[in-house]
Amino acid sequence: MAASVTPPRGMRDFLPAEKARREHALGVIRRVYASHGFDEIETPVMEDASRLHAGLGGDNEKLAFAVMKRGLTGDDLAAAAASGDALSLADLGLRYDLTVPLARFYATHQAELPPVFRAIQIAPVWRAERPQKGRYRQFVQCDIDIIGEAGPLAELELLTATVAALDELGLTGCTIRLNDRRILAGVLASWGVADDLRERALITIDKLDKIGPEGVARELRELGIVGGSADVAAELVALANADWHLHDGVVPPPSWLDLDAYRDLLALRTALPGAAIEFDPTLVRGMGYYTGTIFEIAHPDFGYSLGGGGRYDGMIGRFLGREVPACGFSIGFERIVDLIGASAADRPRAVVLVYDADVPQGALLALKAELVASGARVRLERRVKNFRALLDRVTADGFDAFAPVTADATDASSLAFRELGA
Amino acid sequence: MAASVTPPRGMRDFLPAEKARREHALGVIRRVYASHGFDEIETPVMEDASRLHAGLGGDNEKLAFAVMKRGLTGDDLAAAAASGDALSLADLGLRYDLTVPLARFYATHQAELPPVFRAIQIAPVWRAERPQKGRYRQFVQCDIDIIGEAGPLAELELLTATVAALDELGLTGCTIRLNDRRILAGVLASWGVADDLRERALITIDKLDKIGPEGVARELRELGIVGGSADVAAELVALANADWHLHDGVVPPPSWLDLDAYRDLLALRTALPGAAIEFDPTLVRGMGYYTGTIFEIAHPDFGYSLGGGGRYDGMIGRFLGREVPACGFSIGFERIVDLIGASAADRPRAVVLVYDADVPQGALLALKAELVASGARVRLERRVKNFRALLDRVTADGFDAFAPVTADATDASSLAFRELGA
Repeated sequence: MAASVTPPRGMRDFLPAEKARREHALGVIRRVYASHGFDEIETPVMEDASRLHAGLGGDNEKLAFAVMKRGLTGDDLAAAAASGDALSLADLGLRYDLTVPLARFYATHQAELPPVFRAIQIAPVWRAERPQKGRYRQFVQCDIDIIGEAGPLAELELLTATVAALDELGLTGCTIRLNDRRILAGVLASWGVADDLRERALITIDKLDKIGPEGVARELRELGIVGGSADVAAELVALANADWHLHDGVVPPPSWLDLDAYRDLLALRTALPGAAIEFDPTLVRGMGYYTGTIFEIAHPDFGYSLGGGGRYDGMIGRFLGREVPACGFSIGFERIVDLIGASAADRPRAVVLVYDADVPQGALLALKAELVASGARVRLERRVKNFRALLDRVTADGFDAFAPVTADATDASSLAFRELGA
Repeated sequence: MAASVTPPRGMRDFLPAEKARREHALGVIRRVYASHGFDEIETPVMEDASRLHAGLGGDNEKLAFAVMKRGLTGDDLAAAAASGDALSLADLGLRYDLTVPLARFYATHQAELPPVFRAIQIAPVWRAERPQKGRYRQFVQCDIDIIGEAGPLAELELLTATVAALDELGLTGCTIRLNDRRILAGVLASWGVADDLRERALITIDKLDKIGPEGVARELRELGIVGGSADVAAELVALANADWHLHDGVVPPPSWLDLDAYRDLLALRTALPGAAIEFDPTLVRGMGYYTGTIFEIAHPDFGYSLGGGGRYDGMIGRFLGREVPACGFSIGFERIVDLIGASAADRPRAVVLVYDADVPQGALLALKAELVASGARVRLERRVKNFRALLDRVTADGFDAFAPVTADATDASSLAFRELGA
């Protein structure tokens, strides 16, 4: 009899050893992310159906589990039957990602959050996918997002924190593939692809690894996305071969190269010399909402990515009615949890680096890295006019001390920490 | 515009400070419970609708959020409209407690679990209640359950661990109200209440605090639950006045007193001399599934209980088709999280006390308490014939060492620990 008693299809129980292993890994990730200045938040597992189906979730919207209205009457059922619309009976749904809830959360609480808000979300999401090996209907996502920072400092902090978390988990050998949607947009524009066909074109380009440049060129032509004149296959090869050396001037930049985007990527590369970062101009990533940098964690032992993210400036502000810069990185927890070991630590001292706008970002990151390495939790705060308000806020946020960082003194020995809240 | 963006009705977002406070409290509870030999498990947030509506959830079954089948057709809708049964469109639901999932989990995994399984479940549940102050539609429960232990050792471990968790959370001044459903059943039998009316009778007795003995007597008569001859009000007063002194023999036990139950309660009282435990013979607790001891955490500052539990031997085995002894204690997390302070700790050394069946339980508990106080995680294991299998199991469960406990040597200095898995 016991054999027939199982959890719902595609969902898992965790027995003590597995549960302990998962919680440990989550604890490491939480701790590293917290030490890098991110703050954990939580939203309800359900959101209003209208928000889940507002077009921000891409294909995942179709996979949302729908939660029925309470107290449905015969009239409701008859109306639904007449319209053939089952979803008219559902007012709520289970989240299929943590990004739509973050956009909703930010719209709700923006006034209570710091101008640059670094969020940790570690929580389950649900998708009614066909269950298969390694793919579940309930699974945990570990997201960090920086909201309100338009420059590449957001990407730098995200990449640094993610690399540190992977290190601390003992996952060596990872590389980060890096690209920018603006570079892809430049290529598409050079082929004469209409704006409203761009997303569809990216879906095809995303198959490059599988079907090759000729296959991509054929599909784009068959779909009527590109006309006969563009030499798509040859340019895809050129795209795939573009690399960091472009900036040497040895290779003249191709006409399609978005130079702003390329400069940003070079800045990331330069500021993170130790990290294994690889420019991959053909990297697409699935979601439609990316507007700038995109990144993925690759590992030589695995044919799939272990996580990824990017910049999505148009989305977080959607429920607010204005654009808010945002960038995020998500670790594919279910994919890494089986690959990792063990360790532990205490609550670190929490400090704020209050930096002037003209402090070089590489120097700022190096300072931060040194403090993080010493065991501290470190947040970066740009100096604002109302300095007292800033200190009150970080004191309320639980920080112990702060140090100003100015452009003329960016080594650790020149930091003068002052205790907060004393 | 932002003002209109809110989480779903009755559900909450947690901003960083609140989230950190909640996670800390949960961490303390987890740590204390783990140190007392409990193991955390996790089940999916959804269960099959048929299990959620199998009669084990009492009134909470009506409050379950229903999750719609995927891929519903017009025919499904028409059939549902014709039958007027909205729930025919739902195959899953969100759990409304952690006990039904535990019963399902135990039925699924029993073969992989130790004979006495001490479970921690710390997780959200959902109830579509009318939202009101302090009552939410998503809230966290912290449950510990001991499955497979028929004797009061289960109650002792549960009570000890719960008191320690409350202590560690800094919640002083709590008392635990204790009763046994068999005592209530004895009273009802003495009034001639039919078996099938017992649960209904208990609902009325549960109002004793509010409507007094005369009110309870009136309602029981009006409902036709008791006849004219029983002097219900007077016996309720006698019941409310029954106390620990009954065992002195000074007061002759009333005819309705279930002596087995009373002896068990006295055993708990004797084994936990330091704890503030109060016999309350009128304590009912709401759920229908309790079969023996019941308990509640009371605090002089609060008019509601901060948690509770009891023995429910009939339920855990329901999906297995046989009776399995079980007892649980649930902390009302949402009620205590606002009352507590802060602290931290490391992974403790984990040890097993392998005790002979004739070791006095009070001595065993004292030993365990001493080890727990020294910072260890302690599990009790009754010695079994296949001692090697037991050691393999506790080694696999992550324990570091074990010590045998025999009836002739029950002080801590006589414990001889041997390392496991070395």
